[in-house]
This record gives sequence, C-alpha cells and structure tokens, in this order.
Amino acid sequence: MFNNVTIVGVGLISGSFALALKDKGYAKKIIGVSRTKASTDKAIELGIIDEALPLEEAVRQSDFIYVAIPVDATIPVMKQIMNLVTDKQIIADAGSTKFVLCNSLADHPMRKRFVATHPMWGTEYSGPEAAVRGAFKDRSCVICEKEKSDEDAVSLVEKIYKSLGMHIAYMDPENHDIHAAYVSHISHITSFALANTVLEKEKEEDAIFELAGGGFESTVRLAKSSPAMWAPIFMQNKENVLDVLNEHISQLRKFKSCLEKENYEYLVELMENANKITRIIK
Amino acid sequence: MFNNVTIVGVGLISGSFALALKDKGYAKKIIGVSRTKASTDKAIELGIIDEALPLEEAVRQSDFIYVAIPVDATIPVMKQIMNLVTDKQIIADAGSTKFVLCNSLADHPMRKRFVATHPMWGTEYSGPEAAVRGAFKDRSCVICEKEKSDEDAVSLVEKIYKSLGMHIAYMDPENHDIHAAYVSHISHITSFALANTVLEKEKEEDAIFELAGGGFESTVRLAKSSPAMWAPIFMQNKENVLDVLNEHISQLRKFKSCLEKENYEYLVELMENANKITRIIK
Repeated sequence: MFNNVTIVGVGLISGSFALALKDKGYAKKIIGVSRTKASTDKAIELGIIDEALPLEEAVRQSDFIYVAIPVDATIPVMKQIMNLVTDKQIIADAGSTKFVLCNSLADHPMRKRFVATHPMWGTEYSGPEAAVRGAFKDRSCVICEKEKSDEDAVSLVEKIYKSLGMHIAYMDPENHDIHAAYVSHISHITSFALANTVLEKEKEEDAIFELAGGGFESTVRLAKSSPAMWAPIFMQNKENVLDVLNEHISQLRKFKSCLEKENYEYLVELMENANKITRIIK
Repeated sequence: MFNNVTIVGVGLISGSFALALKDKGYAKKIIGVSRTKASTDKAIELGIIDEALPLEEAVRQSDFIYVAIPVDATIPVMKQIMNLVTDKQIIADAGSTKFVLCNSLADHPMRKRFVATHPMWGTEYSGPEAAVRGAFKDRSCVICEKEKSDEDAVSLVEKIYKSLGMHIAYMDPENHDIHAAYVSHISHITSFALANTVLEKEKEEDAIFELAGGGFESTVRLAKSSPAMWAPIFMQNKENVLDVLNEHISQLRKFKSCLEKENYEYLVELMENANKITRIIK
C-alpha cells in the first residue's frame, strides 16, 4: 500500500509497528531514523528496518512517517517533519500524552496531514530488541482530533491499526490524557515506587528476595520500564497524574488506617469494593 | 505413599495441592473438609477430592492433613486437629503468615507432628474452580521452625514440595512474616488500592475503561483476590505490613514531589533506581 515508510525511533513501539506493517504487506521498504547508530544497526540486523537515513532524507522518500520517541522529543521532531511534508504524505505519532502535542501542532499549516494516535499497547522493555511480532492485537488505539486531520490520512491510519487487531476510540486530547493517567501512567508510578520500596529493604537484608513470586512480579514488572520514555510522559501529564496519585495515596491511607485501628470490617469493605475491578478487567 | 490425605479447605491452594498429590501418586484417596457443602460438591465434581467428611472423621482416617484456609481460622482448626492426631500422622499448613500461628501452637504436645509451611504460589482467584494442575512449580516454599517438627514429618513434606518443583527456604516465623510483607502482602494492598483509585474515577465518568490495557491489568489483577483470605493475613501481619506500607507511601510521595516541583532529574533518578529491580525479577 505504501512504497516507503519511515519510523522515527526504532524501539519497542515503532519496531513492533514496522514488523506489523511488513507482515501485513503495507510497506515495501521501511526506513529507520534514530539519533543512535547502534539502534539502527540493531534494527537492520533484526529485520525491523531496511535502511537507516537522517530524518530529512527519510521523510522526503516516504509516503508515511510514524513517530514513536519520548513525548518531549516528539514535539520538535514533529514540527520538523511537518515543515518537510507535502499533501501526499501522512504522519502519525504513537505518544502516550496527547494534549501538549496537539496544542503545539494546532496552527501548523500541515496539521491536516498528521494523525494523533496512541496505540495502547506496550511492555516494560525498550529498544529494537523489544520489538515483537503480533503486538497491538485486541488493544485500544485512541485517535485524537480526528476532525483536524485529512480524511484520507485518518482512514488509512485507522485501516492499519484495525488490521493489527486494534479497536479505535476517539477522544479529545484532554480526555485522553485524563484516562491515560488512570489506566496507564499511575500503574507505572506505583510499580516504580513499589520497586523502590522493596529495594530500600534490600539494603538492610541480603538474599531475602528468592521468595519473590508471581503476585510481586506482576505488580512490579513495569518498574523495569525506560525512564527516558516515562519521565517525559509523567511531566507532560503532570496535572492528571498528580490527581490520580493523590487519590491513590489517599486510598492507601485508608488501608493503613484500617490496620492501625484494627478495623477489620472496613478493611474487608475496601477489598470488596476493589473486587469490582472485574467490571473493567475480566 | 499415603493412603488417605485430608485437605482442610477446598480452594485455590488446597485444591491445587490435592491435584498435585494425586498426579504424583502420593495419595490413594483425598478427603475434603469445608464448612460449605457447595464447595465440597464442586471439588468432588472437579475430581479434586474423592469424598467430603466432617473434620474429626476426616482426620481420623488420614495419614496426612493439609490445612489451607484463611489464617485466622487456621489457628483454632489446627488446635482441633492436633488434639486428634497420633504420632503416626503428619499435619502441614499453607498459610501466608507464620508468626501468630507458630506461637499459638508452640506448646501443644503434638506440635512435632506439624510442619509450618508457606508455598509461595497463588493466583487472584479462589474456590475449588481456581485449583489448577502444575501449580507451585519453580516457586519457593518457606518452612518455619523446622527444628520443632519431627524429622520424618519435615522430610516427607519437603519431599512432596520438591517433587512439585518448589525450592525450600528455611526461616524463622518473624523473618518469614517480614519478607512476606515485602514480596507479597504489599503487592496485594497496592493492587486493591489502585483498583479503588480507578473505581473512584469511574463513578464520575462512564465507559472510559475500554482503554485499560496490559500494564494496568498486571498491576491491578491482584485486586480480584479474596477479602476473606487476605484481610486476616493483613491483620495478622499488621506491624510488618504497616512498615512496608509507610515506606511505600513515602516512595510515592517522592514521585509526587518531583512532579509538583518539576524536578525532572530526581524523577529520572527515582526511576533508574527502580530499574534495579531486575536484580530481583529478571
């Protein structure tokens, strides 16, 4: 469907996306752009990209440009790309925050060639080695400000995501960022904090963690996530993340108070309420 | 190896244990004891137990009695069992707390027939339907106060756990409870609290959680766990759980402060420190 596709960033998301584009026959050639030569070398070796080029050159050669880099870097890079593209090219991003980005690009004359997307899939790993086949399946992809993008651009991007097995949700950037804080960003913060809690203890006592089992592993695995990727997300979504974090700390304090006061009944009530999460995750 | 084995409680742990005993050829007949007829009926239907009997009758008929019920109920039930057994019988429990139980049983004349164990495996599900084949594999099993149990009892219990693929760790009950607070109990509390955080938000806005993806699911899945099982654990291990919970809240506050003050560098530092968790979980 495309001749050349450029992915900016050759990591977990862009790499998995590139593999899918190739597998589904959407791209003849995939060009990778990265500040780090080691990353593009690795991506070529892994068959994720066909060649590495500097951004300008890559954009000129491509029908479709997909940007998946830390959200703070996305803004200047996206402006640079928009300054280069024509009415025939399509751009999309995959960032975990949408409000600041959409606002920054709102007045650009080529805004209509850009589709603001957030495919809600990921793992705790990063870099080209983290890219996997079959990613994105059965997950949601949020598209923001659909009305600000050209119809041909939106429908092509939707078609790609749908063919990867994603269902599309439309949201304005503000709402996206609120929801992302609740269903993704807070989980990462609690995992990071839980890891630090346990590592603090580890300083005191060696070798106690041979016990760490399945429950611990699943609540803490996101603590392995990349700070370079996540710190800018938390910062850009600061207000919403702080709202959720304050609520979460106050929920933890309820548990604390139950234990301190040995209020067994209220403790059970808190847990029974938490059980209702099966409404959201089966 | 045994003729008859009794499991007290016919749920996730005891059920999975019973299935394993049968599969490994350790038991000819498994007797189930439960306050709830629906549970033993279900356990018979699922092939977990061969018959259901009242506690006294079951204990009299059994070579080995395995108790996996909420930790507050374990103490009186264990005393009742100890009052019934002879020198030929072996008892073990699977409880997630060890200090209060071991102390309560310390002076019982049949203490030596009891092995205090905690196989560190579980899922967020409960009841006989939650029992699975192949459970326990590659996980740790803690045995406490090994020296207070008869050698034949300890070595048989060890042999069973090892044959399920578990590695045995020896600890005194105090240390077990500290470590369990860090590697298991806190994960459950953070999950319960995270679920409540998100459900609090859900009250305000409908249908936002179609977005909930993999990261969220893994940090919150323990929130589906049984309050009847976990409330007594938190209560019995109150002091240790409060220590960890206080540390965890203070770690979360560090993230909060970074965001409030836009201290990007310290935020990255906190996350890089959290990344060291790969030392503990690969």
